[in-house]
Amino acid sequence: MSLLIKNAVLNDIKSDVLISKGFITNIEQNIDNSTDRTINAEGKIIIPSLKNGHSHSGMTILRGYADDMKLMPWLQEKIWPAEAKLTPEAIYWGTRLASLEMIKSGTTFCNDMYFNFEMSQKAYIDSGIKSASGPALFDFFDPIKAEEMKSNCNYAVENINVSQNNSLTLAAHSIYTLSKESLQWIAHLAKSKNIPVHIHLSETGNEVNECISKYGVRPVELLKKTGLLDTHLIAAHTIWLDDHEIDLLAEYNVTVVHNPVSNMKISTGGVFPYQKLKEKNIKMMLGTDSCASNNNLDMFEDMKIAALLHKFHNNDPEIMKAEEIFDIATGTEASIFPQLSSKIEVGAHADCILLDQNTPALVPSHNITSNLVYSANGSCVDTVICNGEVLMENRKIKDEEEILNQVRSISNKLF
Amino acid sequence: MSLLIKNAVLNDIKSDVLISKGFITNIEQNIDNSTDRTINAEGKIIIPSLKNGHSHSGMTILRGYADDMKLMPWLQEKIWPAEAKLTPEAIYWGTRLASLEMIKSGTTFCNDMYFNFEMSQKAYIDSGIKSASGPALFDFFDPIKAEEMKSNCNYAVENINVSQNNSLTLAAHSIYTLSKESLQWIAHLAKSKNIPVHIHLSETGNEVNECISKYGVRPVELLKKTGLLDTHLIAAHTIWLDDHEIDLLAEYNVTVVHNPVSNMKISTGGVFPYQKLKEKNIKMMLGTDSCASNNNLDMFEDMKIAALLHKFHNNDPEIMKAEEIFDIATGTEASIFPQLSSKIEVGAHADCILLDQNTPALVPSHNITSNLVYSANGSCVDTVICNGEVLMENRKIKDEEEILNQVRSISNKLF
Repeated sequence: MSLLIKNAVLNDIKSDVLISKGFITNIEQNIDNSTDRTINAEGKIIIPSLKNGHSHSGMTILRGYADDMKLMPWLQEKIWPAEAKLTPEAIYWGTRLASLEMIKSGTTFCNDMYFNFEMSQKAYIDSGIKSASGPALFDFFDPIKAEEMKSNCNYAVENINVSQNNSLTLAAHSIYTLSKESLQWIAHLAKSKNIPVHIHLSETGNEVNECISKYGVRPVELLKKTGLLDTHLIAAHTIWLDDHEIDLLAEYNVTVVHNPVSNMKISTGGVFPYQKLKEKNIKMMLGTDSCASNNNLDMFEDMKIAALLHKFHNNDPEIMKAEEIFDIATGTEASIFPQLSSKIEVGAHADCILLDQNTPALVPSHNITSNLVYSANGSCVDTVICNGEVLMENRKIKDEEEILNQVRSISNKLF
Repeated sequence: MSLLIKNAVLNDIKSDVLISKGFITNIEQNIDNSTDRTINAEGKIIIPSLKNGHSHSGMTILRGYADDMKLMPWLQEKIWPAEAKLTPEAIYWGTRLASLEMIKSGTTFCNDMYFNFEMSQKAYIDSGIKSASGPALFDFFDPIKAEEMKSNCNYAVENINVSQNNSLTLAAHSIYTLSKESLQWIAHLAKSKNIPVHIHLSETGNEVNECISKYGVRPVELLKKTGLLDTHLIAAHTIWLDDHEIDLLAEYNVTVVHNPVSNMKISTGGVFPYQKLKEKNIKMMLGTDSCASNNNLDMFEDMKIAALLHKFHNNDPEIMKAEEIFDIATGTEASIFPQLSSKIEVGAHADCILLDQNTPALVPSHNITSNLVYSANGSCVDTVICNGEVLMENRKIKDEEEILNQVRSISNKLF
């Protein structure tokens, strides 16, 4: 499948972009190729798509199910009992809804962690966006559950169909839901099979305190001891870090994922130490977290709120400039996922979006990046291309009505 | 002009809403009236529109002109020189763009403060939304400027055409741009003519410190001394308040306006003391502030960010629940502006919006208010009615293309 995008505005210059077999193959001012499809992008800006570094897409069916509660009652009385009711069908359609929302707001990749990941992966493949997902791993310190987990994990690793676009991770939930032995087992498997590990890390102060009293070390040090730092590790949240832990994350080339909206809404306390991580050149991604704690998947909103949070917290408007968070959100530091590109350039993966310049939020255009970060939201996205395929044009997506109806019907049945 | 809205979802019940001469005159399940116009609202939720408590709409033409800078260089090197270039035409079309954005995101009222308010008021009237605006008052402690200001203000008060929908305020800029004598003069005029006063108050710690060193009292105490507390006062920002000042605001029935996005982006330091103000039953509104410091006018976004900010700042997710900020944003406490209503009920002003339930962000619908505050953005708004007039239907607004073209052309000419 080849695709020609005509007359898009790329870095302020009107350009044609040629796409073939999932890659950008030419960018010039006038390309006159015969292609399977042509998009007239007159008056539209072309930018790299957004990449979601951390979510639990199946939970989209729980959007608005419970809010404004303290963490433990929220989990124990509301979220966990609701999750216990979720069928594979609910996870599939929840992830389809998540993918629909992500496409409509310009996101073409999601690093996911959820139960029954086979259903999530199928949903991502059916929606056309790229993903990373894998078996959700936790044992709650129960040796029987640990054996079951290992056996399921081994089966998944051997049997799942992975592709370049929909890749495998080991979704090691956290240090507070996995025994030390299981953490070691996961590290060993990850290293031997060369599979990235995705983990929640140092999201709350409580997690750190419990780790210290249980193991005598802080969470990142525990990850080092169990061998997990020695894998391709993606750590979500990473709020409560001391300087030594930040040095370890840098030394082991860990990718960290910032989830500003979820952290603020749940009130995890503390703030992702953006400046310190940046000084150490630690790779960062931006994540939405789930719709239970966000409650949408619009990465434009997360970009803005991240920038506001760090300016506010540091009492300094110069921190996290628009260009910085735009680069993070488009995946400039997401080299852990080779299926992604964050530039519109020849040789890059063709993951890009078109925004209509005739959107009030983008007028006037003193600074496009500022408009994208501080003024736009996902609704400014007109066209979405992922892996060279057109997933949305003129904001129309196939299956939209069916997805909404299925989610409504399943949600009414379960709750 | 009479209008019948058929089959809208009002508080989970399918209802017809009859509107006549700017008011809601009947709500029943089946109204069979002959009206000038009927809207089929099948599948749409009806809610009160949002009310913007503080903005400088003319500055919309400066969206993205300068960001990520410390306050004083931002103002001195960028914003003030840019404002000096703004023509009456730029202010008119900037305010038309602001009104367009507000309508498209469900806001039907703006309490404005800007130079050349006659142009802003004309723009609001031409756009169809309600507004409050008036002469922008500052003298920079220069007696000659003060005389000029008084003379212009007197002229405006005597000559401006005000209506119920587009009402007059005295836009007293702040205690740091107005001499004590001018503050007293404004208070006197406001009381004698019964005109509300709109002021910036205690936005930065610096403002408070300078007030104390200059006058020996804190800003709210200075307002009391000059008689301004004794007017119908609307105070924007009100971040740096002590308990005594909060008591005074309560005693004098001052309406305060919270501008969370602007405060975070500019990094004013401190946080609007929501809980203390709430405990004293002080009336609150929500504001966007200008597009130079926000950079959009989507009040859905401001609702969410307000709730996130207060949860984060207090480390408590129970603070500022969705229902609380929704009530504030729809104007439940905005009785200072009698042209507004915040309920869909018989006798209320017909200022309401319809949202399409087939929007991914509103699916599933466990809790509509949660979806509106935490998941929706302005693009979920389908239809906007202000004073009984349909300003937008199916997201289409008259003059949209002309407004965008005018703003682009003026912006290119000036900058």
